[in-house]
Parts: sequence; structure tokens; C-alpha cells
Amino acid sequence: MPLNQQIVLDNRPQGEATTGNFKLVSRDTPPLEDGQVLVRHHYLSLDPYMRGRMNDGKSYAQPQPLGEVMIGGTVGEVVESRSPKYAAGDKVVGMGGWQEYSVVSADQPGALRKVDTTHVPLSHYLGAVGMPGVTAWYGLVKIIEPQAGQTVVVSAATGAVGSAYGALAKARGLRAVGIAGGPDKCKYAVDELGFDACVDYKLHQDAGSLAKALREACPKGIDGYFENVGGMVLDAVLANMNAHGRIAVCGMIAGYDGRPMPLAYPALILVNRLKVQGFIVGEHMEVWPEALKELGTLVATGKLRPRESIAQGIASAPEAFLGLLKGKNFGKQLVKLI
Amino acid sequence: MPLNQQIVLDNRPQGEATTGNFKLVSRDTPPLEDGQVLVRHHYLSLDPYMRGRMNDGKSYAQPQPLGEVMIGGTVGEVVESRSPKYAAGDKVVGMGGWQEYSVVSADQPGALRKVDTTHVPLSHYLGAVGMPGVTAWYGLVKIIEPQAGQTVVVSAATGAVGSAYGALAKARGLRAVGIAGGPDKCKYAVDELGFDACVDYKLHQDAGSLAKALREACPKGIDGYFENVGGMVLDAVLANMNAHGRIAVCGMIAGYDGRPMPLAYPALILVNRLKVQGFIVGEHMEVWPEALKELGTLVATGKLRPRESIAQGIASAPEAFLGLLKGKNFGKQLVKLI
Repeated sequence: MPLNQQIVLDNRPQGEATTGNFKLVSRDTPPLEDGQVLVRHHYLSLDPYMRGRMNDGKSYAQPQPLGEVMIGGTVGEVVESRSPKYAAGDKVVGMGGWQEYSVVSADQPGALRKVDTTHVPLSHYLGAVGMPGVTAWYGLVKIIEPQAGQTVVVSAATGAVGSAYGALAKARGLRAVGIAGGPDKCKYAVDELGFDACVDYKLHQDAGSLAKALREACPKGIDGYFENVGGMVLDAVLANMNAHGRIAVCGMIAGYDGRPMPLAYPALILVNRLKVQGFIVGEHMEVWPEALKELGTLVATGKLRPRESIAQGIASAPEAFLGLLKGKNFGKQLVKLI
Repeated sequence: MPLNQQIVLDNRPQGEATTGNFKLVSRDTPPLEDGQVLVRHHYLSLDPYMRGRMNDGKSYAQPQPLGEVMIGGTVGEVVESRSPKYAAGDKVVGMGGWQEYSVVSADQPGALRKVDTTHVPLSHYLGAVGMPGVTAWYGLVKIIEPQAGQTVVVSAATGAVGSAYGALAKARGLRAVGIAGGPDKCKYAVDELGFDACVDYKLHQDAGSLAKALREACPKGIDGYFENVGGMVLDAVLANMNAHGRIAVCGMIAGYDGRPMPLAYPALILVNRLKVQGFIVGEHMEVWPEALKELGTLVATGKLRPRESIAQGIASAPEAFLGLLKGKNFGKQLVKLI
């Protein structure tokens, strides 16, 4: 059996996460038992939620255990099978973790899913046609529930969730406005992702200044907001929300490092009769088929052309992950493992 | 026509509201035109939302104009009518404002409503069987949507909204926990209003300490919270919310004075996948008949025995109102005008 390089969580972050929290180890892959398959990972997905798992505190999921392989979504190819459900050569998406191979019990519900790479590149099943895409879909369709002509905003607009959100919004005839960091990302959001406008938060020192820029980009106010970052950006958006606006809360990257990120004016929730709703898409499996179908069609027809930031080799995963938390990636952050 | 004493808004508060913001004036009531009625007010309702109207900033409603009679709910008796819809002696509820009499166009939709005082005392139509009661009903039934066996919490538990909320929660078989200030209010909440427990926030210096007390009162966590005050109380409740909990936001007394009351850990909205929704009940007139019917029955059958704090005479309204903002009232704050 092949040697398997893995990244394990070695110790928990004190404040900001560092590469020293991780450790690279090599282990033999165990021989397959009946019903198992061996998957060689082509890509590993890096996502902000992983930062939350590194802490020991209360969160929506169990903490990542120390000394075990970091959790993470993967796409790859079945290289050996002792299950009638899969054959060598099958392309699959799963939760293989930060490692080069995984041994998976094929009968475990939801552990693996076969995918078709005829019209959709394999890596996109970790982004636009995977968990981030469905996350954008759920937030927009099920929480924001936009009506024609409304204005919807997303932070981290060029990321995996943001770019899917933009395409889904435009497909519904909405005004889609992004928030991103730096002129390159903002230009890309408008030119390539189809956003009607994009506001560069790095040009603003405080929420008041950012709120003013948002007002120019959203002259009719904001009806729906998909929250990915928290902090100053959320404060600035709140100041522009229309009455009865909806905010889908899915990530608060700015807050994952343990520093509390207070919300300055929660009274605006009352003043504008807002709905602010947190969710994690893994709790809404019933929408996945519908969402994946729409997202796959958008990609296959060129209406959603997600960008990827690709690090090479499993050893590069910790550094790439820390960069993601700081917004250094440009598009969906992946690690290529072959 | 009788002389009418009125309280007008003389100037806007700089920070905390003071009696100097108001002015008492006397004016003759104008002669009635066709279709109008003259109502003599028996009670004026004082409510936290009025503080928001005193500011000039963006809120859910137009600011109270300077020099005009303060807005407010009233119950009273028709003393003269030039409308076929009302006769002298009819008991009515309306928005007569901070004054002894009002002249009302009977055809204006929603301006006046005849009420039956056989089983429900007139003053209760400003509280349990009026806007505050419907507010509690909407928050509990339409936003929190509790399921059997769940725990629901309300701040300002002995106030007009809180006491109705408690009775509505108990009628649905829920665990109802109040938050109130001082041992007298807490004892009253449990002994008279039927709450299962009541936490005295005045015993706690910070959100952490209050959160611990709430945990003891809510051993299964909190599924629904009706937010009336903001600030430290909201932070403490948030720390005890169960996954998929719902928070109805209707008042943030602590924030009305213009001092921002930040929310310390908005990330908890994501961690626990909460829904936080602001509302004002005047935008949901469709629920009023159903809500008023249930509330009237609860009062008529003695299951809801709301307490009232009654100030005497129109001149006492500003002082009573400022006391309400500081939690000095005990039960629904009214001004008796006859």
C-alpha cells in the first residue's frame, strides 16, 4: 500500500493560528477491508470553518482532535475498491482530510459521492459545485429570499462562496454588489464574475467610510447580505440595510482568532426590522440536489467561472490555510496533491 | 368645548432624555366637523418606542415633530359624535397622544376601535389586550415558533409585554423564564405571572455572571428569547441559546439614549445557527384579531393578571415616561387622565 503523507493538528492556537499548530507525518495506508475503497486525493479544499474546529471551545461542531488528520473536503480517484459500489477510476468527492490518500467505508451514508467531470472540472466539486456553492445557494435562496429588482451584497466576493453567490444573484435578475480587498479582486469581481459593482474595503479605515462607499454602490439600499467576514464590514452593511432586509450569516473569519468582534449597533436589527440568521449548510442536505444542479449548469454554461488559488503538495497546506484566513487567496483555495 | 391639556415635544434629547424635553400646554378643543368624534381619554399608555421617536435620526418611524403633541396610545370614551359609527358613551381605543382629549375622524382606518369592558377593564386595552400584548404574541408565535417542552425567556418580564409573554408561553406548555430587576419584580413574576423562574439582572455586574444565573434557570438552554432591553442581558442570553434558537427583537431600551450598545459576540449567531429578527407589530395588522382574542380570553379567565403602574394627571407623563426607561415602573405604565 502507498505511503500516505498527512497533516495533523499538533497543538491548539493561542490567539492567531500559526504553522506550528500543524505537523506533517507519514503513515502507511492500511490494507482494505471488505466494503472499503482507497481514494487518491487530487485536491484538498481549504475553508474558513476549519479555523473554528482548531479551537477547543463551543462551536457548531466537535473540535478537531489533537494528533489526528485535519478535517477537510477532497476530490480524487478510486485507486482500489473492495466495494461493489465503486470501481478503480471513479472520480469521487468526500471528506478525506488533509492527506494524500484515504480509506473510506463505501456504505457510510454521505461519505463518498461519484461525480461527472465531462462538463465540470474535478476541482470545482470542492468549490462552485460543492459545499461553498451550496452555501451561497442556501443563503441567497432560503434565507435572503430575494425579490426581483432587489440589491444583494456579499463579502469575500471573489472567494468560492462569493463568486457562486454573484452568479446565482445575476441569474435571478438582482443587483449584485461585492465587497473584496484590493483593486485586483474588485476588478475581477466586476469583469469576470458579473457583479454590478464591487467595493474595496481596504480603502476604508472605519465602518463609516465603508458605509458611505456601499451607499454609492447600492443607491437603493441593501435588501440581502451574505455575511462572510464580520467586524467593520458587517457594521458598514448594517447601516445600509433596507427595512425588512435579510442577513445570512455563514462565516465570521475576522472573529475566528478568538478576539471578539463586537457588533457596534445591534439596535439596527430592530430599527430596520431585519432578519439575521446563522446557518451551516451541512444541516440542510435536503437542498443539495437542487442547488448542485443549478450550480453545475451555471459552470457548464460558462455563467459561473470560479477562480482557484492552488498550492502544490500536502506540505504547503498549513501556509495556504493561514493565507486564506488573511484573505491572501484569490478565489477558491485548494491544495493540489498529485 | 373643553380645555385640553397637552404635552408637546419641545426639544430633542442630547443623550439621556429629561423632563426639559417636554412642555405642558393648554389649548381649546376645536369644534367637531362632520364625521368627527371627540374622545375624552381615560388612560394614556407610555411605551419605550416613544424614546426612539424623540430622536431625529433614522428609525422605523418618522421622528416626533417638535411642538406637536407626543404620540401615544389612549383609551377613553366618546363624549360627542358627529359620526354615525360612534355614539357618546362608547369606549374606544386609539392613538390619541399625550393629551386629555382628541378629535378623531371616525372614517380614518384604524384610528379608533370600540372595545367591550364587560370582562376586560378599559386600561388593559393599552396593555395585555392591546399593542404590548399583541407584540408578545407576535414575537412568541410568529418569530420564536416554540415547540412543546422548549424554554423561552423574556427580559422586562413584569412589563406589559413580558407578562403577556409569560401567560402565552404557559398556555403553550413551555418553560417560561423571566429576567427582571430586583427581588420584588422577580417574586411577582413567579408568584403572580406564572413564570417558572425569574433571574434578577441587578444581582450581576457583567454578562458572564448573568449568563451563569440564566444557565441555572434554564438547565436545557434557551430556545426562544424575546429581547426588550439589549446590552448585557442580550450578551448573557446569547451565551445560553440552543442550536437553532430564535430571538425576537422588539425593544432595546438600553440603547435608546443614543449610546451605542454593542453586541459582544455576534459570532454566536453563526455558532448556534440562530435567527435574530426585529419587528414592529404595527406592520402585522393581520394577526391582531387572532392575538387579541387569545389575550382577551386569558385576561377574562384570570390566567393573565397584568399589573399596572399608574401616574395621575397629564402633567405627570414626562416623569413617568423617564422612569419607565429606567425600569422604575412595575407593570404596564399608564397615566390616568380622569
